[in-house]
Amino acid sequence: MTTAKAFTDFYSVIPAGGIGSRLWPLSRADAPKFLHDLTGSGKTLLRDTWDRLAPLSGPDRIMVVTGRAHRAAVEEQIPELADPNVVLESDPKDSSAAIGLAAAILLRREPDVIVGSFAADHVIKDNRGFRRAVGEGIAVARAGYIATIGITPTEPAIGFGYIHCGPPLQIEGAPHAVGVDSFVEKPDLVTAERYLADGNHLWNGGMFIARADVLLAQLGQTQPELLAGLTELAEAWDTPRRGAVVDRVWPRLTKIAIDYSVAEPAAAAGRLVVIPGDFDWDDVGDFASIAKLHSGGRKSDLAILGENARVLADASTGVVISQTGRLISLIGVTDIVVVDTPDALLVTTTANAQRVKSVVDALKLSGRSDVL
Amino acid sequence: MTTAKAFTDFYSVIPAGGIGSRLWPLSRADAPKFLHDLTGSGKTLLRDTWDRLAPLSGPDRIMVVTGRAHRAAVEEQIPELADPNVVLESDPKDSSAAIGLAAAILLRREPDVIVGSFAADHVIKDNRGFRRAVGEGIAVARAGYIATIGITPTEPAIGFGYIHCGPPLQIEGAPHAVGVDSFVEKPDLVTAERYLADGNHLWNGGMFIARADVLLAQLGQTQPELLAGLTELAEAWDTPRRGAVVDRVWPRLTKIAIDYSVAEPAAAAGRLVVIPGDFDWDDVGDFASIAKLHSGGRKSDLAILGENARVLADASTGVVISQTGRLISLIGVTDIVVVDTPDALLVTTTANAQRVKSVVDALKLSGRSDVL
Repeated sequence: MTTAKAFTDFYSVIPAGGIGSRLWPLSRADAPKFLHDLTGSGKTLLRDTWDRLAPLSGPDRIMVVTGRAHRAAVEEQIPELADPNVVLESDPKDSSAAIGLAAAILLRREPDVIVGSFAADHVIKDNRGFRRAVGEGIAVARAGYIATIGITPTEPAIGFGYIHCGPPLQIEGAPHAVGVDSFVEKPDLVTAERYLADGNHLWNGGMFIARADVLLAQLGQTQPELLAGLTELAEAWDTPRRGAVVDRVWPRLTKIAIDYSVAEPAAAAGRLVVIPGDFDWDDVGDFASIAKLHSGGRKSDLAILGENARVLADASTGVVISQTGRLISLIGVTDIVVVDTPDALLVTTTANAQRVKSVVDALKLSGRSDVL
Repeated sequence: MTTAKAFTDFYSVIPAGGIGSRLWPLSRADAPKFLHDLTGSGKTLLRDTWDRLAPLSGPDRIMVVTGRAHRAAVEEQIPELADPNVVLESDPKDSSAAIGLAAAILLRREPDVIVGSFAADHVIKDNRGFRRAVGEGIAVARAGYIATIGITPTEPAIGFGYIHCGPPLQIEGAPHAVGVDSFVEKPDLVTAERYLADGNHLWNGGMFIARADVLLAQLGQTQPELLAGLTELAEAWDTPRRGAVVDRVWPRLTKIAIDYSVAEPAAAAGRLVVIPGDFDWDDVGDFASIAKLHSGGRKSDLAILGENARVLADASTGVVISQTGRLISLIGVTDIVVVDTPDALLVTTTANAQRVKSVVDALKLSGRSDVL
């Protein structure tokens, strides 16, 4: 299967890791967030991501980095995924290792390759706006910078990190490119309102585009040992030595998010460029996000997810996710979150959605991992 | 098995009908309220009722009136229940028929018998106070009146009917007996507060004690056709003709609550006497009652019912009833009601507890009787 490619030097990388603890009991170790349809599109978030990237890099130029345990589920979602495009992690080593290894493998196969990394579990509906931003990001990457895509805020969100923009830049093919002054952690509401008002802050969408060699050189600045390990892995990857090297090197890889190992140091060094993205975007971080995605922002709605959901609701709003086909009756509960799975039930409110992670932590501590 | 009886001319009748729609999905057509343990005592409400009455009338003098479908479950709860003490209803005909038929059958067996009717699904913990009130009720019945037991209110409840007391009476063996001015339907809160303050109103506990002949004569005043039908049934009951007569007569019996057919007319005629009961009492009419029963009135508590309940709760109050053994996690939900059964889940709040019946009605209308 082939599709016309827009960008012949471009390779997509989808790191498909992370369980999504705030979406428990829907997301589990064996059914992480990216394997769920959270938008009602009929497709998993992973498949949605794939379909969004295929027209940009071509479907034969998308690499998926995921855990060994998820190989079968990933291949079921993407039957066209060829073996050389699957990178399996022995155990999770965070995003620097996942994206860095993909870049290192691709660099050996194709020295001038530009890689773009896009999370497997984010929601974007405006493919056209996304494509425009990625196109500018690729132009920025060709000029030797590391590009990231920032999302123009539509509300004072406190669940996302922000990018503080610097001055506009003159880069061929990237008319909207601006410098990055700094990255900002999730703010409080007052600060978020200020960011929204000043027009100078973007949501950090966690999307990075760069030449593979540039990305790895930047990683080596702060994480030389990690880079050495990834390079060793990449050299062995397409050889019979892969298994032995993985067994030896993988356990020693440093766990660190790419935001800290690459993005922030690059920003500080003036090598990071941000493309403002005017498309919709959500990381679907918790059940409140799901409720919002489905209600289109209206507070009066009850979102219902689940193929066989049977819900009888009276004067109730929020979100119901049903995996059991049981009849679920809601009476007079507002902003409620009900997640009904075969072995665990969650009842909370959208205002408490961020606290779901604490349940997962409590279950871990109490040894009840049967439901994690 | 025998137990010392206090009252040799007394026979207990337990009408065990009614599903308890406000306790759906716990209560079902095939698992009505009286077959559940709602107090955490380890016993069903029916068994609790039986154990409360056995010392008063003797365990061989308790008649249970129930639906044919519940025979096996009732006999499982009360293995000592002898055949002559089981009255099976072909289909539900409300309390006048149930209690009236029991009285008519017992009257033929024992002309001077005094019958006392006590719902199968109410909660009383103070057996001593209950026994004292029943004793006075029997004395009143011996004097030819119909006695009812009214409960001294402890709060301005709006979920119960009230009895407006008349003047004190001089009846041998019943020092607390007073006349009944009238019955009052469930009041609004302002009225209920007035009732509580004036000290002249009691909760209508739906307990009646009378000579069987007196009770039936009163019934005949307002419902002569119903009385005729019940008399015909009673005459055939202990004979081989029972089946044929039931088939012919039962379908034609008038459905009417005993409050309307007997209690109110008797009150109007000065033949009804109320014994104030200073014991605890609850008809466990909805999930708010269950929450209250278990919390002892404290608003900060989360009541958990269910043998295999696994609940992980954070900053949550209300009541959880688990029949599935699934892990139930609550986060930041207050006054919540969660009822988790194998085929249906209810999520509401104690303030909405009375509206549960509307769900049952909606399910009936929509033909989803599989979960009723």
